[in-house]
Amino acid sequence: MTNFVLNAWYMVAWTDELTAAPLARRVLDMPIVLFRTATGQAAALINRCPHRFAPLSRGQVQGEMIRCGYHGLGFSAAGKCVDSPFGLAVPPGAEVRSFPVVERDACLWLWPGQPELADPGSIPDFGYHLDPAYRVVKGYSAVGAHFEVITDNLMDLTHTRYLHPAFGGDDWVPEVAFSQEEETLYAHYTIAQYPPSPFSEGYLPANGRQIRETDYIRWNAPASMYLHIELRLADAPDDARALQPSSHILCPETATTTHYFWASGAERDAPITDEEHVEAMKFAFDLEDAPMLEAVQEGMEGKDFWDLRPAILAYDAAGVRARRLMRRKLHAEQRGEAPAPPEDLAAAMPAS
Amino acid sequence: MTNFVLNAWYMVAWTDELTAAPLARRVLDMPIVLFRTATGQAAALINRCPHRFAPLSRGQVQGEMIRCGYHGLGFSAAGKCVDSPFGLAVPPGAEVRSFPVVERDACLWLWPGQPELADPGSIPDFGYHLDPAYRVVKGYSAVGAHFEVITDNLMDLTHTRYLHPAFGGDDWVPEVAFSQEEETLYAHYTIAQYPPSPFSEGYLPANGRQIRETDYIRWNAPASMYLHIELRLADAPDDARALQPSSHILCPETATTTHYFWASGAERDAPITDEEHVEAMKFAFDLEDAPMLEAVQEGMEGKDFWDLRPAILAYDAAGVRARRLMRRKLHAEQRGEAPAPPEDLAAAMPAS
Amino acid sequence: MTNFVLNAWYMVAWTDELTAAPLARRVLDMPIVLFRTATGQAAALINRCPHRFAPLSRGQVQGEMIRCGYHGLGFSAAGKCVDSPFGLAVPPGAEVRSFPVVERDACLWLWPGQPELADPGSIPDFGYHLDPAYRVVKGYSAVGAHFEVITDNLMDLTHTRYLHPAFGGDDWVPEVAFSQEEETLYAHYTIAQYPPSPFSEGYLPANGRQIRETDYIRWNAPASMYLHIELRLADAPDDARALQPSSHILCPETATTTHYFWASGAERDAPITDEEHVEAMKFAFDLEDAPMLEAVQEGMEGKDFWDLRPAILAYDAAGVRARRLMRRKLHAEQRGEAPAPPEDLAAAMPAS
Ligand code: FES
Ligand code: FES
Ligand code: FES
Repeated sequence: MTNFVLNAWYMVAWTDELTAAPLARRVLDMPIVLFRTATGQAAALINRCPHRFAPLSRGQVQGEMIRCGYHGLGFSAAGKCVDSPFGLAVPPGAEVRSFPVVERDACLWLWPGQPELADPGSIPDFGYHLDPAYRVVKGYSAVGAHFEVITDNLMDLTHTRYLHPAFGGDDWVPEVAFSQEEETLYAHYTIAQYPPSPFSEGYLPANGRQIRETDYIRWNAPASMYLHIELRLADAPDDARALQPSSHILCPETATTTHYFWASGAERDAPITDEEHVEAMKFAFDLEDAPMLEAVQEGMEGKDFWDLRPAILAYDAAGVRARRLMRRKLHAEQRGEAPAPPEDLAAAMPAS
Repeated sequence: MTNFVLNAWYMVAWTDELTAAPLARRVLDMPIVLFRTATGQAAALINRCPHRFAPLSRGQVQGEMIRCGYHGLGFSAAGKCVDSPFGLAVPPGAEVRSFPVVERDACLWLWPGQPELADPGSIPDFGYHLDPAYRVVKGYSAVGAHFEVITDNLMDLTHTRYLHPAFGGDDWVPEVAFSQEEETLYAHYTIAQYPPSPFSEGYLPANGRQIRETDYIRWNAPASMYLHIELRLADAPDDARALQPSSHILCPETATTTHYFWASGAERDAPITDEEHVEAMKFAFDLEDAPMLEAVQEGMEGKDFWDLRPAILAYDAAGVRARRLMRRKLHAEQRGEAPAPPEDLAAAMPAS
Repeated sequence: MTNFVLNAWYMVAWTDELTAAPLARRVLDMPIVLFRTATGQAAALINRCPHRFAPLSRGQVQGEMIRCGYHGLGFSAAGKCVDSPFGLAVPPGAEVRSFPVVERDACLWLWPGQPELADPGSIPDFGYHLDPAYRVVKGYSAVGAHFEVITDNLMDLTHTRYLHPAFGGDDWVPEVAFSQEEETLYAHYTIAQYPPSPFSEGYLPANGRQIRETDYIRWNAPASMYLHIELRLADAPDDARALQPSSHILCPETATTTHYFWASGAERDAPITDEEHVEAMKFAFDLEDAPMLEAVQEGMEGKDFWDLRPAILAYDAAGVRARRLMRRKLHAEQRGEAPAPPEDLAAAMPAS
């Protein structure tokens, strides 16, 4: 019994990772194989042949089926055994579990819970990934931390000041607010003015004038985050404006490791090149955030977050709220209850 | 309490690995030291000095004893403390466990169970190892899988078609049969004809004529297998015949790792050189089988084979039978019963 | 619940390791951060920020506080939160545990137990570290063994003959005696004569004459050992004398790993250079002792020392005594009792 919410859409791959070459990926501590059939159908199966337990990812996609590379049984995208080697009969009951998947906004979403509850309408919007107004770069990082440790990081952007000095440093002093719409959470940041940073110059060249920044980050369960950054000239906010959308979508690999899918968009005419853009994302995350998050995970020594009695600061409101929402969902699932309606959230928010 | 059958002969080394230089090897999850005394006696002791637990393999063989390299106690091949440093009295009760060993057919066999049951007559025959009619190459691989996962692999040679395409590929279509004599199991394979493969050419050059292959693999508990391959020309089976015997002898190192001792013989005048022969064995096992077997082990995630409810194919009969025989022996030992007589095996065989 | 005696002084660093750059070190299976404030105060805190559990060692010492590198909370040397980022109020209750520390004889001693019992008067004497009569070299080794496995090694120097042949070899035959003063243990060694060794020549050049050696090693709980070696010419013991003091101070990192702080002194005019001195210490410990001790630890396979029923030799008296003293302390602490008075030790000594 793992401790993950099952009735939720988890992003498990970029759609262009899906080809005829099977891809093995651990998701919610389950071994999964992802592939695309000859007709283009996306498939997600448990990555374990029911015969002698070979990973199906060591086999080959042939037409609409994947054939095990050990003794040759073939399985459809729905996980049924449809072919047996040497002309033998298909063994009765040989089947692997398949998962509902949806391709949208260049993301492959997988539903590990009850199939009848899998409503694609609840997948959050990342439409800018395919919007021609933006040049979008995307990537993937494997992170050695529980996904909620990373959610905490993303939902409290004030960590920028100490962990990402290149993004603004001591002058980057935000005003913070929080809001919520049903189960969608937002943290809002306004930085009235700060000197242009290497980061801001890539999107909005300021000729030395001060920058005004207004951001929000949006959270949807289980851990799909959209960050909207708006840069203006502090002394002429109506003259120029640069939007910089980015995506931070987390999928638990195990209880202590996470798949982190990220994307970042620049307006078509922004000065930053795609190469610089990738570099900036990798620098901030792989060299500054990830080592800290992995150190946090290690420092928790396998203990539960709440058992460690964390000090709560005002800026933690959204991260704490996200944790509580996930905990309510988990407990409801574990009790076999229907998904709980959103609680009266304002009451439960820490003072901010 | 480990889950291994103890009253059985396990091959733990090639006899030429045994010298005055002590050899540490884990066997059935026990630390063992193997060495040969000055008079040539083979010895196997628990590799832990009873004084302060130094591995005796860090000591030195001196005459008929092995001397601990930490404080100098000396132990006979029978495990008795026979020498104390600085002329002190030998400490009473200082002793390490020794195991019955037998050298036969270039193999060192060890009996981890009740010494009074250790009958060398029950060691299976690998006489061709020393038969001058053959050029025999031999080797060792450490495999990251439970030994029965490897037994499954060896007792179902139909995996050749998908996992070892160089041995015959799509044309290699066997007829399979099974037989049993008391506790010795056989799987028989006949491949009526297939085009000469790189493998068959090494033993029987066919000048493009089709090959007829008849094989059997013999199993004895715990996991000592002899594979007998007979190659002929399909269109003239009486003209030429090549025998290719090989040995596949498994010894559990731990519950998830195995010592695999292999040997392979070619008739004196076969075209294959010893170097090519070693290369072929290593290629097939180390590069094709072992990665698959280790992936199977990992995919089982520590669970019991039967609990995973494997699909059973007709070709699994011998492997399944071997697993059942071992399980009966294990349960009998754990209940402290005498070794069980062979059951009525035909009844228990899966339909084939 | 770890199995360590808490009411004791543990050496956790050389004092010159303590700077404004925070040092992370695991001690008694707890994560600790060590640093020195601007005014020179030594500080030892749990290395985990109470906010989101970042290691404080990833932060910076600023004046009298250490500032977390994640979101910027600042903590005093006593562990109180004294600064909050962005001008927010200091969160009530935010605090990390601090430990009493004492700097003495170039060692930093830490008290992990009840602070009111921390009496610096009970720290054992290593005054020669700072005595101008000696040239002292010092160092550190990380050892993969329980600290008592290393105590055993040090309290029975007869292992020298087999493990350190360069120190005297077969001619190095000691007479051994033991003594005790309250909870301080001594093992005494006299080697009547042996040919000069590479070791003895470094301290007392003998021109080929025989050496007479008298040593004692002193033990104090938990595992702080002082070795006093005295070398003379065997045929003229009053003519020349070289003292060679050394320190062997152990601090458990985890249940199976140990911080080993060592120092070794030579008289000002001894022939050995500091470089040779360091080299000799590292050779003996890192290349001869440590591999053996780590092999012992591995050979114990996680079992308790006494459960393995070790053979006891006469030379083990001091090591066994040290183990018993530590066990009495541990049991007293676990029962919540006052530290036990020394037992009647002579009665409990193994015959020697
Ligand atoms: S393990 Fe897949 S067919 Fe045998
Ligand atoms: S450990 Fe073997 S003699 Fe001491
Ligand atoms: S984790 Fe230290 S201030 Fe947030």
